[in-house]
Amino acid sequence: MFTMDELTGSVGIVQPCDFEFGRVGEGVLLDNGQSFGPVTVRYETYGTLNREKSNAILVVHAFSGDAHAAGKYSPEDRYDGWWENMIGPGKGLDTRRYFIICSNVLGGCRGTTGPSSIDPSTGREYGMTFPVITIHDMVKVQKVLIDHLGIESLLCVVGGSMGGMQALEWAVEYPERVRSAAILASTARLTAQGIAFDAVGRSAIMSDPNWNGGDYYGKPVPARGLATARMVGHITYLSDESMRTKFGRRLRERETYAYDFDDLFEIESYLNHQGDKFVERFDANSYIYISKAMDYFDLGERFGGLVNAFSRTRAKFLVVSFTSDWLYPTYQSKEMVFALMKANKDVSFTEISCAYGHDSFLLETERQGKIISSFVDTVYEGR
Amino acid sequence: MFTMDELTGSVGIVQPCDFEFGRVGEGVLLDNGQSFGPVTVRYETYGTLNREKSNAILVVHAFSGDAHAAGKYSPEDRYDGWWENMIGPGKGLDTRRYFIICSNVLGGCRGTTGPSSIDPSTGREYGMTFPVITIHDMVKVQKVLIDHLGIESLLCVVGGSMGGMQALEWAVEYPERVRSAAILASTARLTAQGIAFDAVGRSAIMSDPNWNGGDYYGKPVPARGLATARMVGHITYLSDESMRTKFGRRLRERETYAYDFDDLFEIESYLNHQGDKFVERFDANSYIYISKAMDYFDLGERFGGLVNAFSRTRAKFLVVSFTSDWLYPTYQSKEMVFALMKANKDVSFTEISCAYGHDSFLLETERQGKIISSFVDTVYEGR
Repeated sequence: MFTMDELTGSVGIVQPCDFEFGRVGEGVLLDNGQSFGPVTVRYETYGTLNREKSNAILVVHAFSGDAHAAGKYSPEDRYDGWWENMIGPGKGLDTRRYFIICSNVLGGCRGTTGPSSIDPSTGREYGMTFPVITIHDMVKVQKVLIDHLGIESLLCVVGGSMGGMQALEWAVEYPERVRSAAILASTARLTAQGIAFDAVGRSAIMSDPNWNGGDYYGKPVPARGLATARMVGHITYLSDESMRTKFGRRLRERETYAYDFDDLFEIESYLNHQGDKFVERFDANSYIYISKAMDYFDLGERFGGLVNAFSRTRAKFLVVSFTSDWLYPTYQSKEMVFALMKANKDVSFTEISCAYGHDSFLLETERQGKIISSFVDTVYEGR
Repeated sequence: MFTMDELTGSVGIVQPCDFEFGRVGEGVLLDNGQSFGPVTVRYETYGTLNREKSNAILVVHAFSGDAHAAGKYSPEDRYDGWWENMIGPGKGLDTRRYFIICSNVLGGCRGTTGPSSIDPSTGREYGMTFPVITIHDMVKVQKVLIDHLGIESLLCVVGGSMGGMQALEWAVEYPERVRSAAILASTARLTAQGIAFDAVGRSAIMSDPNWNGGDYYGKPVPARGLATARMVGHITYLSDESMRTKFGRRLRERETYAYDFDDLFEIESYLNHQGDKFVERFDANSYIYISKAMDYFDLGERFGGLVNAFSRTRAKFLVVSFTSDWLYPTYQSKEMVFALMKANKDVSFTEISCAYGHDSFLLETERQGKIISSFVDTVYEGR
């Protein structure tokens, strides 16, 4: 017998939880040397933790993601969680078998402490007084949450893009706590091109006079700057091919060219719409902090190289890249795979042929789902 | 005996010329239906036009180029023309043999009439009252210049990137006037991705409050917006590989990470520098108009397809692409080549292996120079 939820493949109605720890000047020791607190962590869980607490999977989100990875908040909710196609009964991360945890990252703006949170020492939003953070710092906060949940060992840490960076940090920093790590459409270090795109996004935001040095809460937000940043980011998430297939040179509600500066092509209005929509749900300062955290990311840097970093790990690894991903192309995944092999680690690698670009890890379900479920099952069953 | 100029391979000291035509409401009939004038065309020439006027080569520039393709304006001049490595005695376009013409495009800001020019009917800069123009319109203006110079038939029209688009328009629109066309790192139509990057650039400029609807002359210019637009454009001109080789993750004047929002990596300060430098020499409204002109560009559109468009041509074609050019990748050059072959035209095609990205047509000299000179020589000698 299946329940209705199982038939639809959804985890159904979910509720976010908040976990708080630390106090002013005492909480998490950041890479910049500062001890930072208090920290609130917004998280959600799906499925049931088994008695042995051996079936917990931590899902780590990408740049603009949040803790709401699956399900709806109410039956009327128009949108599902961001990884709805991967998390649920019978899906790639099967909630009938596994207990899934997803938390919003430190520095975010979707429930976890970030620049838009109130600094208890001033009673005002942190803004740009928020400490500069790293991917490693995000993972330190997740570690406190996992401790709080009483989970000794994570069956898997799985994430795409910036989520993959966090999964890598988990495997390297807490080798005893991670049985496996799945790294999707990601990289072991941000390249010059990646840093360059981030710099453009920050430049767009900081050029908006409404940004006002980060002090805009309760005032008009730097909407144009943030929208422009999102537009350029969005281009890097798609591919030449997917844009050609989806939009090509199709005109927007016209048959012939107009000679003015309104959106002429569908791709223009699509991008502008993406930019505007983003402003409604994302904080410009979080964009600045999180993009900077990605810039710092270079897994081998603290350990004298990638092979050394991986030598510390005890996890099984799954690395997945996508043919059309030009933000973190396959050669960057292969670099990880070669370093893992050199460090004599257990690693599986697949390049999935998919036209969606970097966003493939969010959109391609079938092959990715099967690969991940078979990887996780193997680790769970100790095969 | 060689002169000093021939030994150095430079055309030496050059002088720009201005050619004016038309009057208010009468000049060039634009694609938007408007008759536009007066028009000033800034141009330069190198080498000597032969008696038969059969050795003239029109060089057409890319997005942010200008008429100053080779030589210096004075011995103290720090910079050469933008295609110095291709134009000169003994170079790819050999000024001992050929007469080279290069003009700034309509809509530009480097001497030819554009949005920053004075509208004689108001006595003020056009700004956004300048008519919306197309690549085709740019070529119509060049045609008036070539008529003025008394040149019946151009030996070659050669250009990279947006210059390639103009060379294509020349061959299609004035088949009797073009004996050959060399299309480098270009495309027969701007793709959705190309339009998307242009839309981001315009969004950055138009979001800058100093842009003020295009009315900023004599006031502070939209420097931040234009710089941001240039930064994103610049990324598309380079390649992942060239950025990795040139910058990688090298820090700027530091050994260890700083945890602040200053430029940390060399690539950041390089890009910011490129953005700032661009503001000194380029007009934000020209950026808007010229990027829009590229958006419109779809060579086959007016003729019911690319093969039909090419059927009109009488020129020999040379098409060159570069392996690392992801803005106008090789498949877009091949699309032109296939259409030319289908139209039964004479076409040579080469893909040059080069890591510089789209900018390869500006930076790769040796192979490109040989390919172009041999192509032009063949046409000139009627072989």
